[in-house]
Amino acid sequence: MAEAAVRKRGRGGGGAARRAERSAVSFETARFIERNIPNFEVLTEEALELIEYNAETVLEEIGVNFPDNPLALQRWRDAGADVDGDRVRIPRGLARQLCATAPSSYVQHARNPDRNVVVGGKNLVLAPVYGPPFVRDMAGGRRYATMEDFRKFVKLGYMSKWLHHSGGTVCEPTDVAVNKRHLDMLHAHMTLSDKPFMGSVTEPSRARDSVEMCEVLFGKDFVAENTVMTSLININSPMTFDDVMMGALDVYAQANQACIISPFIVGGAMAPVSVAGTLTQVLAEVLAGIAYSQLCKKGAPVIMGAFVTSIDMNSGAPTFGTPEASHITYGAGQLARRLGLPFRSAGSFCGSKLPDAQAAYETANSLNMGLLSGVNFMLHACGWLEGGLVSSFEKFVMDADQLGALHHFAAGVQVDENAQAMDAIREVEPGGHYLGCAHTQANFKSAFWKSDVLDYKPYETWEDEGGRDTMTLASRRVEKMLADYQQPTMDPATREALGAFVATKKAAEPDSFM
Amino acid sequence: MAEAAVRKRGRGGGGAARRAERSAVSFETARFIERNIPNFEVLTEEALELIEYNAETVLEEIGVNFPDNPLALQRWRDAGADVDGDRVRIPRGLARQLCATAPSSYVQHARNPDRNVVVGGKNLVLAPVYGPPFVRDMAGGRRYATMEDFRKFVKLGYMSKWLHHSGGTVCEPTDVAVNKRHLDMLHAHMTLSDKPFMGSVTEPSRARDSVEMCEVLFGKDFVAENTVMTSLININSPMTFDDVMMGALDVYAQANQACIISPFIVGGAMAPVSVAGTLTQVLAEVLAGIAYSQLCKKGAPVIMGAFVTSIDMNSGAPTFGTPEASHITYGAGQLARRLGLPFRSAGSFCGSKLPDAQAAYETANSLNMGLLSGVNFMLHACGWLEGGLVSSFEKFVMDADQLGALHHFAAGVQVDENAQAMDAIREVEPGGHYLGCAHTQANFKSAFWKSDVLDYKPYETWEDEGGRDTMTLASRRVEKMLADYQQPTMDPATREALGAFVATKKAAEPDSFM
Repeated sequence: MAEAAVRKRGRGGGGAARRAERSAVSFETARFIERNIPNFEVLTEEALELIEYNAETVLEEIGVNFPDNPLALQRWRDAGADVDGDRVRIPRGLARQLCATAPSSYVQHARNPDRNVVVGGKNLVLAPVYGPPFVRDMAGGRRYATMEDFRKFVKLGYMSKWLHHSGGTVCEPTDVAVNKRHLDMLHAHMTLSDKPFMGSVTEPSRARDSVEMCEVLFGKDFVAENTVMTSLININSPMTFDDVMMGALDVYAQANQACIISPFIVGGAMAPVSVAGTLTQVLAEVLAGIAYSQLCKKGAPVIMGAFVTSIDMNSGAPTFGTPEASHITYGAGQLARRLGLPFRSAGSFCGSKLPDAQAAYETANSLNMGLLSGVNFMLHACGWLEGGLVSSFEKFVMDADQLGALHHFAAGVQVDENAQAMDAIREVEPGGHYLGCAHTQANFKSAFWKSDVLDYKPYETWEDEGGRDTMTLASRRVEKMLADYQQPTMDPATREALGAFVATKKAAEPDSFM
Repeated sequence: MAEAAVRKRGRGGGGAARRAERSAVSFETARFIERNIPNFEVLTEEALELIEYNAETVLEEIGVNFPDNPLALQRWRDAGADVDGDRVRIPRGLARQLCATAPSSYVQHARNPDRNVVVGGKNLVLAPVYGPPFVRDMAGGRRYATMEDFRKFVKLGYMSKWLHHSGGTVCEPTDVAVNKRHLDMLHAHMTLSDKPFMGSVTEPSRARDSVEMCEVLFGKDFVAENTVMTSLININSPMTFDDVMMGALDVYAQANQACIISPFIVGGAMAPVSVAGTLTQVLAEVLAGIAYSQLCKKGAPVIMGAFVTSIDMNSGAPTFGTPEASHITYGAGQLARRLGLPFRSAGSFCGSKLPDAQAAYETANSLNMGLLSGVNFMLHACGWLEGGLVSSFEKFVMDADQLGALHHFAAGVQVDENAQAMDAIREVEPGGHYLGCAHTQANFKSAFWKSDVLDYKPYETWEDEGGRDTMTLASRRVEKMLADYQQPTMDPATREALGAFVATKKAAEPDSFM
């Protein structure tokens, strides 16, 4: 059903007004990934049942905390939970039963309907890094992020073929007041790109601002009927549901806007050091969080999130691309499918300070695992550096390039007559070569994924050109992309209304940097 | 059965003499990987059957070439094939039937029986890069490889915990005569390491030398009864079986020594540009090659190889870590399991000129795919650079470190009571943390894989220490490992006999660099 909806809008069913607004100069963007490959599963049926049983035990015996949130406690009481102070103990089976009203997939609409995404099923939607207070590039090194950096990342995301989503806080614009930066960030996503985006979650009032800005962009009626944002609601693991986040979730759920409800876990710190223990806690947390979203509004679209990584027990630093993080993500994917919910996990995770080999090993480990674990929404799919403290310009384009490989792999293997290539094998014969044969001529353009960043040149050419490493090549690509950027067109009245909305909101209260 | 044999020797069943030879100063080496995870499979049953049918059609209608090899042609004629000039056409079903006498797994013995490996089943044996004429390190850049470089790589391999095998031509020692370098290479593997190794294949006479040197090392009777080498026999794709390689295969098969029989394919050049077409050719080639090994000697141990990669159609350069190479490898793994044979593929493949982010993305893609595709013997598991032209010292230790992550991932997920960690979740409660809890204290040492190369330090510390990238950290590690190296002990009589064997052989003919 969700699939039919996006196809319909994709074919231009979304109204003449919005069609007219569409970009005249548009950069190519691949359709979200529709996997034609199986999922990889590490947990047996017995292990899954054990973890599900234990998660219910956690909810029933230990419970979860909803501090400073009388409304949430009342909703839980009404639903049949045992509420004691901030602690909510949920009878076995109740949370899973409440989760059943959440849709198994949903369409997130973009202002360019060709860029709508379907979140769920066999699909994978890729969105950029979220949250870093710092940026890094080759020329400027590491520094606090600004709104100008933010705009550059939105432009790069818009121009990245394999990125389906503009994301949210692609970096934290520290030069704009905390109570106003959500307005500038949303404005950038709405005007500098035409891909789908995320809303603010740092205050319920900012979530409301996000909905209202979407009403300006898409029209009030359209927003009332459709999901136009997917926003990130983190759980304070272990098992604590922050009242600010829950307030933002409530705003979005009431407005039928989607939320990722996501434990944020560094194993050994916010969850047990074991994979099965972490999965138990992750499942308990998402069951409680998603059940609560349905108490806010039955049928509200949500994603089961799992931000999980391991820890270096010597330094306490989170570590990325590790085998334990992979185990947890594969297992969480299995649990999400059994819940019948879209799944968010993985990303371009790394602990490295530079976009070097460490960054790439860790990132490739996580990207591959994300694809094979059945992730439906991959936040942080490009640009993440230094444990999420830094958004890296070079790594953004390096990772975004690798996302093309995921698309090609996910397409699976064709076995039609052309793919069987028996004529080619007959033509070439033993001892020949395929470079010029008819089958190669007919297929070579689409046969292989080709990187836009990596070096395939002969050694001598590469050396003559300065012996550049990947970071240097990526730096050139960032420069070129930003130089080539062209803003997608927008109806002038909409543009003016968005500007006015931001100006009015900003004028209404003094700047705060708290 | 093979498994029982290795365990028996592992427990010291290999004779007192060999036990006495064992290293007094021994560096820790992990046991080969015994996967506790499923294989990932991209091809459907229908696709597999189609490819198998087409491969038989190729063998029957097109056939394969065995040039300059009357003995091979006679063997094929005797087996019932249709021989026309060099061309051998194999009736449908015959090759597969001949392959049936090859064992599904075998033990390769090492002079230290703790380091014996079982090749086949759910196991994965990791061996280093093979064949590059150049080496590269940070201090010396790129240069022709020498015997001194070769020895350094053998030492690094001996000291690498996650590497089970010493390999073969870890780099091509270009400063030693072509007709004598196999003697020095084998001598280095035998004396500088105690891990299993590979024999020479560049002339049948050198294969015989390899067997004879093993007889010196292990004893003639032991070699007659046991496999002590696994050597690499490449097929000249498409579908040509070089007489030199076939001669070496014959020597090894007669001596019950194992060979990898491996198409060497850059898709679009030596095979069709399509995945299904390449798999068809790969299967036809290995069916013919392995059938031929069994015509040499029924029951000779062999591995189905598949060196497959894609091509950059602009430059003609081979490309690595690509999604198409992954499709082919996953498919080849499925085909190997249906044949009931051990499978060799994947490795630390990359096209990059430097051990940078490109190298690491490409390598991680290939290593992960190799693990999940069911590879049993992974040649090139560390140290490969620049499309196989270069053995890199830094990349050797970087990749070897990543192999530890494969071990941890392959161990699968525990779900015993300790792993469930319910006591920990009860102890910590909502809002707490797990850093000091009893379960973490009891488990933290073994909970997470930890890199020995990558940087996990806080940003400020890392910056104070010079802001080193992965290559720089790896360079320091290479220096330290070589400084710490200690040769495994060896019975002096054996050492002397090996030296005498090499000296006698070298003295018997003039140097040739052809």
